[in-house]
Amino acid sequence: MRVAYLGPEGTYAEEALRRSAPGEVEELPYPTVHEAVMAVQGGEVDRAVVPIENSIEGSVNATLDALATEASEVRIAGEVVLEIRHCLVSPPGVRVDQVERVLSHPQAMAQCARFLRERLATVERAPASSTADAVRTVASAGKPWAAIASRMAAELYGCEVLADGIADHADNVTRFVWLAPAGAPPMGEPSKTSIVFWGFNDESPGALVAVLSELSERGINLTRIESRPRRVRLGHYMFFADLEGTCDEPRVQAALDGLRRRVETLRVLGSYPAAPVIDSGRAGP
Amino acid sequence: MRVAYLGPEGTYAEEALRRSAPGEVEELPYPTVHEAVMAVQGGEVDRAVVPIENSIEGSVNATLDALATEASEVRIAGEVVLEIRHCLVSPPGVRVDQVERVLSHPQAMAQCARFLRERLATVERAPASSTADAVRTVASAGKPWAAIASRMAAELYGCEVLADGIADHADNVTRFVWLAPAGAPPMGEPSKTSIVFWGFNDESPGALVAVLSELSERGINLTRIESRPRRVRLGHYMFFADLEGTCDEPRVQAALDGLRRRVETLRVLGSYPAAPVIDSGRAGP
Repeated sequence: MRVAYLGPEGTYAEEALRRSAPGEVEELPYPTVHEAVMAVQGGEVDRAVVPIENSIEGSVNATLDALATEASEVRIAGEVVLEIRHCLVSPPGVRVDQVERVLSHPQAMAQCARFLRERLATVERAPASSTADAVRTVASAGKPWAAIASRMAAELYGCEVLADGIADHADNVTRFVWLAPAGAPPMGEPSKTSIVFWGFNDESPGALVAVLSELSERGINLTRIESRPRRVRLGHYMFFADLEGTCDEPRVQAALDGLRRRVETLRVLGSYPAAPVIDSGRAGP
Repeated sequence: MRVAYLGPEGTYAEEALRRSAPGEVEELPYPTVHEAVMAVQGGEVDRAVVPIENSIEGSVNATLDALATEASEVRIAGEVVLEIRHCLVSPPGVRVDQVERVLSHPQAMAQCARFLRERLATVERAPASSTADAVRTVASAGKPWAAIASRMAAELYGCEVLADGIADHADNVTRFVWLAPAGAPPMGEPSKTSIVFWGFNDESPGALVAVLSELSERGINLTRIESRPRRVRLGHYMFFADLEGTCDEPRVQAALDGLRRRVETLRVLGSYPAAPVIDSGRAGP
């Protein structure tokens, strides 16, 4: 099975892939989320693993937008929730007090602002395209440089972890999804369903409430809802929602039928198993 | 008036500030969104301008999290919606076919993937901490390098625009907010209100619907809703919502009272005027 992911090697997306791969897979790094999603749509790969919520390097909006409007033949087949644990990483033999430069993706750098201020205040900071790229650069620089990245990236490029869990907020979780062509089976017994909808037929106040009542009236819990601008005019949104239950259940089918009558477009992005959280700091599976 | 913004000079946040400043202001760049918000909370500055929706460089989650849980004495006093128009920018005299290296924030770079593939396929790409930092580096490099940034940043650093509107999707809008200490007046006649709430007292299916019905039953439209993980346990969310109407209106007060009875925490982030879209490609005001 050929699986695209947001590269380069050593990103958190690759770690999510490895921690949840159903067996032997061929890992193929893609430069952007959009290209990884469209590789499934175009049949270049069998699956893709991309961030969908709360990510560092991947623009999550890119995932949502591609699923909603471009990748009509792509479905969510599974999810992985990875606890992101940033580490300070350098080539073997470098001590923290010797570090002259720190590299990372700007977003990861911002998440470790307090650590950098308190422990590496006078050290030069340099941006990188991804946390993995930062480690790759540090590994081959031949200088006392350090990267902010995952433990897996450190091991991949032969570096050592100088400090672990250095983000300002300990709780930093990213949700990734496994994408598959429409018709492919989910990765286990499905328990949740992701949908996206837009364009209320009824423009009166409370249109969103009426739409969501189609679910609540049938006892279907909503575990997540997010709005995104629709790019047509400002003030027009599409809504991404996760609900408990699967498309095979009659009450979910009835709710989706009801919802479909109230909106211009409803897309079911897939029914798939809900995932436990995986800690990126622990040893691999 | 001292106004913090997400720096360095030449970011889209600074452009949003300039396009909407109510008069003479002293502009103070801050390295992160979090620090800019907390500068208002701590009284270091009178106002701050930070991205809140759909931004490139600023982590918008940082804004939402700071407003919801840390900056209890900070309110939204106004908003600015800026149409982001990425340009290819270089020192005077450089032609597109001479460019040897392109620098930008990774997110902006990803948004211009098609342009880079088609027009600058063989050119080296290098990350920067912000689009403004990319222009600053290019301006002083003395080499045929180019940056992806705004027209304002190009002008600020004495560079020229080689190509305009180079993002893959033309429609790229970021919403910024003006933050002020609690008690400060809104920036004009208020028409909308932002709130954040979490912790449903009633954990049955449809708790969110019941909460939102407090608004819809009173004819109050919801213009935006977004969920964010609460960082306590996975599956617990806080909800950010924008509604039409202001805190002074009896029906809004009644709805918020009703809402308050159904949730653990409700914070009113401010009532303020709704803003028109400003095009970052046009000449300044």
